[in-house]
Amino acid sequence: MAEIIDGKKIAAELREEIRKEVAALKEKTHIAPGLAVVLVGEDPASQVYVRMKGKGCEEAGIASFQHILDPMTTENELLALIDTLNNTKDVNGILVQLPLPRHINEERVLNAIDPGKDVDGFHPVNVGKMVVGDENCFYPCTPYGCQILISRYVKDLKGKHLVIVGRSNIVGKPLANMMVQKNDRANCVVTVCHTAAPDIGYFTKQGDILVVAAGRQNVVTADMVKPGAVVIDVGVNRIPHPDDPSKTKLVGDVDFEGVSKVASAITPVPGGVGPMTITMLLQNTLKAFKIQNSLM
Amino acid sequence: MAEIIDGKKIAAELREEIRKEVAALKEKTHIAPGLAVVLVGEDPASQVYVRMKGKGCEEAGIASFQHILDPMTTENELLALIDTLNNTKDVNGILVQLPLPRHINEERVLNAIDPGKDVDGFHPVNVGKMVVGDENCFYPCTPYGCQILISRYVKDLKGKHLVIVGRSNIVGKPLANMMVQKNDRANCVVTVCHTAAPDIGYFTKQGDILVVAAGRQNVVTADMVKPGAVVIDVGVNRIPHPDDPSKTKLVGDVDFEGVSKVASAITPVPGGVGPMTITMLLQNTLKAFKIQNSLM
Repeated sequence: MAEIIDGKKIAAELREEIRKEVAALKEKTHIAPGLAVVLVGEDPASQVYVRMKGKGCEEAGIASFQHILDPMTTENELLALIDTLNNTKDVNGILVQLPLPRHINEERVLNAIDPGKDVDGFHPVNVGKMVVGDENCFYPCTPYGCQILISRYVKDLKGKHLVIVGRSNIVGKPLANMMVQKNDRANCVVTVCHTAAPDIGYFTKQGDILVVAAGRQNVVTADMVKPGAVVIDVGVNRIPHPDDPSKTKLVGDVDFEGVSKVASAITPVPGGVGPMTITMLLQNTLKAFKIQNSLM
Repeated sequence: MAEIIDGKKIAAELREEIRKEVAALKEKTHIAPGLAVVLVGEDPASQVYVRMKGKGCEEAGIASFQHILDPMTTENELLALIDTLNNTKDVNGILVQLPLPRHINEERVLNAIDPGKDVDGFHPVNVGKMVVGDENCFYPCTPYGCQILISRYVKDLKGKHLVIVGRSNIVGKPLANMMVQKNDRANCVVTVCHTAAPDIGYFTKQGDILVVAAGRQNVVTADMVKPGAVVIDVGVNRIPHPDDPSKTKLVGDVDFEGVSKVASAITPVPGGVGPMTITMLLQNTLKAFKIQNSLM
């Protein structure tokens, strides 16, 4: 039976390290890192995420500036706010919660964030730096969290075959670019497969490490996994609860029950990658604070 | 026996198309596209490349501005020149010939080029846009040339397995990012393998399409190639001539003689990828001209 990768526990350990470092830096500099989170509109899931990010900041000793804007906010108003935040010294990181309302051009907004404050790692400058191996950038939080989990469970990554299912800009593509770099946290042979492949199993079966970020339940079943593989399930799908149809249940993209009989280690959903994402956001905010105040 | 992919012929066809489009745009707008090429120092190979780029421009009707600078040029002097070129209306594309002398920070110089004029496609903004699939960018010339060759010899790319040997910022990484995109010129499952892999042949043997950019002779031999594969050899290695040790000879990274008995199509070295690189530079310069003059 596979070992369960306890993302919650690992995230808690990392957050405690971040909290300690923030406390030490506060004592030394008498200033605190700050994260601005911008939410436009009233999407319930986004409201939950924004609240969780605020709570994560608070626990870590990071100042949280939450800007909750009316759903009718214009693109120009939003761009003006970002410009202000770009120029506010107390704000080290800026995060615009996605998705934005349809009347706002998401790309234009994300590109307006100062790359040095783009702690979500979605600005083209940060993506480009990540690709070429320039570490003076911010890694997108979800693949960054995957990398941390992988490096805890695979001791020598050099030359290991990492197979990724899914090619999103949020997970698949950045993770592939991070894990192919020539450094100790990476150095893998990387395959990215996706819905265009005639037989995804042909590829998944080869992975010493398998990351699934396809956005669909049961994309990977036991017969598609190499015995002993480390499996990271990034999927979050809400399905009707099998025991009580009036309730719902969260599941990943991997058939957890089956695959956990084949893999050597596997992340559960929830409690695997999820808790890592906000943790890496806090880590990025701390990094932005240190760079902006010449504390690196 | 494999079909020989005649890069010289395909490049000539593309250059003729570019020449015609430039001529038509000149007639319409009474202005011409312009490319500034900056060379610092007297490296003989770089001088040859710069001359070839000038000649390519001339034949295509593109104005060529060549800035040949003293090897002792300071970084600040070079940055000042780039600033001028960024602000010169007749200059649509800027290319700084690499490598630069050691006393100049290459990254700082490349990042100083206006991304809208970065026809080499190395600025982080262009790399980042390429990764996320934003076509409003410039693709690096060598992988762009590979993509064109591949799409001529593989009719339906969807789901084909592209295996790349080598993870350089100039070829392997950008090509992987271009070919995994969801569009008709890409949509491949992509594997990037490299020196850290214990057995490169395990991966190369799987490639419906195999691109080798490892920078070493005979990295791929016949036993490492899937029968019927399309093989693109990006390597350029100068070796002593087998018949006359006083001369040298160019060879690729692939054992051409052996692999051409297994592959369905293969690029020779020279005459394969090489002629495509400058062609794509001209293509990028034309694109920059069209964007900057709202002619898209």
